[in-house]
Order: sequence, then C-alpha cells, then structure tokens
Amino acid sequence: MAGQMREGVKKLFEEANIGHLATVMPDGSPQVTPMWVDFDGKYILVNTAEGRQKPRNIRRDPRVAISVTREGNPYVFASVRGRVVEITTEGAEEHIDKLAKKYLGRDRYPWRQPGEHRMIFKIEPERVASMGAV
Amino acid sequence: MAGQMREGVKKLFEEANIGHLATVMPDGSPQVTPMWVDFDGKYILVNTAEGRQKPRNIRRDPRVAISVTREGNPYVFASVRGRVVEITTEGAEEHIDKLAKKYLGRDRYPWRQPGEHRMIFKIEPERVASMGAV
Repeated sequence: MAGQMREGVKKLFEEANIGHLATVMPDGSPQVTPMWVDFDGKYILVNTAEGRQKPRNIRRDPRVAISVTREGNPYVFASVRGRVVEITTEGAEEHIDKLAKKYLGRDRYPWRQPGEHRMIFKIEPERVASMGAV
Repeated sequence: MAGQMREGVKKLFEEANIGHLATVMPDGSPQVTPMWVDFDGKYILVNTAEGRQKPRNIRRDPRVAISVTREGNPYVFASVRGRVVEITTEGAEEHIDKLAKKYLGRDRYPWRQPGEHRMIFKIEPERVASMGAV
C-alpha cells in the first residue's frame, strides 16, 4: 500500500535522485536500469519511451522493484517492491520536461528522439524497506 | 561473457560507486537493493550476509542484473545482466573490510553484526549496456 511510504521515503523520490528500476524479462530473469523518478503523492512515477525493453516487460508482468539512494549520501536509501498499475501517454511529454527541469535545470528534455513517444508508469508501492530516510 | 565489459564499464565497478543488484523473488517478481561493488578482473563481486533475501533468491535462481551510476555524474552508467557463478565465504570477511576501505576509508567494516557470516557473490556479466563509460 502507498501508505507504507513514510515521509522520508517519499522525499527520496521527490528529490533529484536516481532510481534503479527492475523489471522481469520474458525468460524470468531480472533487468535493471537507472531512471529519473517522481512521486505524485500516491504513486512513484517513471517516464520512458515506446519501443524500449521496460514497456515490453511491464505489459507482460507489471511487477517491478525500484531502489533509490540519495545523491551525495548513498547510505540514505529506499528499496520498494510494487506493481505498475497504470501506463499512460497522457501528460507524458510535459512530464519528461518536468523531469528535465528537476534533474538538469532545463525547461525542455534535451534528449528527445525523432518520433519518440513518451509514457508514464505509475508504480504502486507494496513493500518498502529504507535506511536513514526519516 | 566477461569480455563484453569494456574498460570504462569495469572502471565503474572498480570506483566507489553504488551498484543496484536485482534478483528474483520466489514468486517471480523482482527485488533490487543498493550494494557496494567490486571487480576482480573477470567477475563483478558483491558481498552480503547469510540470512538475507539476496542469498535465498540467488541460490534458487542465480540470474541477476546490476546497474551502476558514477557518483557525482549519474549520466555515466552501466546496466549488466548475468548470473552468479559462485557463492563463497572464503575471503569474504577480508573482502568486506576491503570494501569498507574503498567506500568509507575505514580499515574495518564498521557495521558487523554479532554472528554475521559474510559471503561473496561472483557475477559473470552476460549482457552489458552502458552510457558515457568510455
């Protein structure tokens, strides 16, 4: 339940920290990559693009895990298991610009590819472990 | 194959960067937590303790993934999929001290628990993706 995310953990996802999102490959093995993260008050949000491995994996198996350490002090961290409860393209272009502002201080996401379609994953936290995140 | 790790990627595991190690839970869902990492010239090494979730998961399914970003510049990163080819307690106490030196500048690992048994996982890289790691 999202309620298990205490304030210090929410803050880790609100700050400009890098999350490492794990998904499951078709053969059942894990995959993990660094991502920008966000928190909307209920869900952890990540933003990716159509055609990548993550959407393929998540549409087949929505169970994910994400771990995040604080930039500059990795001994403050959270490790969350949960599931993607929604995949949406609505607002996803604006959302990647918002993340570019948060992480890069840029008004627009500078790494758009021609024909790229962005999407937001909404992750519902189910199990949360943390250290130092008070 | 370990040969797929180019020099810049090996360096990411040799530096005092945090790796995020993903394993598979008994129900097939992913789990990921931050870890200290090391590279021995062939394998990526991590050090954990008996009784934790990681050894339980890895003994059942040795397939893992690990992503690492450079401390201070997370846009240099590597994402590796592979498998744990060996779990050993041999040298594991000295190895956690070595990691304490690397990450904390301490001669001995300061967070030992009474009765704790350390172990090393040796991860053979099979698929390597990276950005900026030249």
